[in-house]
Amino acid sequence: MGEFEFIRWVRNQTSLPPRIAVGIGDDCAVLEAAGRPTLVTTDMLLDGSHFHLAEAGPFRVGRKALAVNLSDIAAMGGRATATFVSLGLPRRGAGRLAEDLFFGMKPLADVFDAPIVGGDTNTWDGPLVVSITVLGEPGPRGPIHRSGARPGDWLMVTGSLGGSILGKHFDFTPRLREVATLQEFVTPHALIDISDGLAADLGHIAEESGCGGVLFADRIPLSDAANQMDDDRTPLEHALADGEDFELLLAVDPRDGKRLLEAQPLENVGLSWVGVCVAEPGLWLEHDGRRTPLAPLGYKHPFEDA
Amino acid sequence: MGEFEFIRWVRNQTSLPPRIAVGIGDDCAVLEAAGRPTLVTTDMLLDGSHFHLAEAGPFRVGRKALAVNLSDIAAMGGRATATFVSLGLPRRGAGRLAEDLFFGMKPLADVFDAPIVGGDTNTWDGPLVVSITVLGEPGPRGPIHRSGARPGDWLMVTGSLGGSILGKHFDFTPRLREVATLQEFVTPHALIDISDGLAADLGHIAEESGCGGVLFADRIPLSDAANQMDDDRTPLEHALADGEDFELLLAVDPRDGKRLLEAQPLENVGLSWVGVCVAEPGLWLEHDGRRTPLAPLGYKHPFEDA
Repeated sequence: MGEFEFIRWVRNQTSLPPRIAVGIGDDCAVLEAAGRPTLVTTDMLLDGSHFHLAEAGPFRVGRKALAVNLSDIAAMGGRATATFVSLGLPRRGAGRLAEDLFFGMKPLADVFDAPIVGGDTNTWDGPLVVSITVLGEPGPRGPIHRSGARPGDWLMVTGSLGGSILGKHFDFTPRLREVATLQEFVTPHALIDISDGLAADLGHIAEESGCGGVLFADRIPLSDAANQMDDDRTPLEHALADGEDFELLLAVDPRDGKRLLEAQPLENVGLSWVGVCVAEPGLWLEHDGRRTPLAPLGYKHPFEDA
Repeated sequence: MGEFEFIRWVRNQTSLPPRIAVGIGDDCAVLEAAGRPTLVTTDMLLDGSHFHLAEAGPFRVGRKALAVNLSDIAAMGGRATATFVSLGLPRRGAGRLAEDLFFGMKPLADVFDAPIVGGDTNTWDGPLVVSITVLGEPGPRGPIHRSGARPGDWLMVTGSLGGSILGKHFDFTPRLREVATLQEFVTPHALIDISDGLAADLGHIAEESGCGGVLFADRIPLSDAANQMDDDRTPLEHALADGEDFELLLAVDPRDGKRLLEAQPLENVGLSWVGVCVAEPGLWLEHDGRRTPLAPLGYKHPFEDA
């Protein structure tokens, strides 16, 4: 049973009171209280699996652990309100490590107004564990799910893609500002952050929305890193398959897409039109007017092998 | 720097927007949104440190991981609303372990209306990590902090104390029902769950409230387990120092205390008058009318050695 299958299975075992709305596979849960929804997301990062503490150092690890959670809030169109940090610290040097992790998180917490207000600090004989929960509020358009894409919608991405392993997977900026700006212009039909890879995350939107997706090979914004990758894959393949760019992929009404493309409101980050949603389930790559099937390449959740 | 000192230090580094109220050392953070407070608590349990998976088995571990979080909600006088479970699973048998942990949690989640609605599931080469966040709402008397005890207040405890290591530390029932019942009668001035031990947790109330506390040796309810402990400490010493009974310790106005003692509203659990708050900081044990200083015995957080 894979990770998503497990969460799906848990939810099938669980009867939800009306106050709780959870889009299966969404990036956050949405809790309703007095008509005011709360976004909740949680991510656990493990030494040796999600990062290597000895290589990356505690500041980058702390920053990333918070940033991936903030990116999940952005992926719902929301803004963050508070951060909770639980640590499992190797005993040796635990105090210093805890401080350095915190100093890695603090600049992001300050910039995005997501103060660290609680958590749980432990030492043990195992490797470093950083588990963060971030609470947030939906943006002006309400929570934006993965499931709202419709055939004909334009697919757009922020920034550029591929090769995040060269550094961006640690140093990315969660697209909270950008998602707020986008909502000044349009109501996205569907939204996700690109953590598993463009093709894989488009696959998530398509699956949850009950539609298919076509990506235009010559419109996908290739990052400098994708061009610098020195292996047997092309920059386009990196942009399609590499995970952890943490850019946003959105589905919008074509008229809204055209407005955004003209307005280009995300000045330093950029916004590209990369494809369209189609009625037929499946993913395709369009190149010189020809469509070929596209596997949902990208990050395989480790639990899928279990 | 100890665990509490670390959290204190983090909060000193953090400027809190007005919507967030955090009682330093409280069991939950309290987030304000549209005048409606949300309680948030998070606890991480680590194999080899908080439990031994091979001995306890996954059902008891899952149950306990949720129960300690629910107890933190009870310790604020609240009720739980939603549960988020993040797992770091050893690769071998990860799927089965995840399911068994879930089945350990589910009965409690059902009984206390705290459905598991989200989380993060990972595999790795390390031991089992279970990190849970529970959200809640304050009870009818608002969030009850550790810091409200006043000289002259009665100190009362639910249930009986000591020897939890014989089983109760896994099988305890979080006192959510009891704290709701208590609030039908009175507004507690201060409240905490006894996780570190009666003396240690009274120390937390006293410190946060700026007062002292006296415990009456012959009024402390000794559990059967405290009497069964076969070591060189007396049952009273166990009741004072053993952690993880997860009963509630409350400070109430003496008139309210007398009402509760007469009404005994917690039928199967019981409620005992165990001491009084005093103006002078410090802890004392009163025996045959004589007061002797009492060290805040009990659980030392492992991080305090770091």
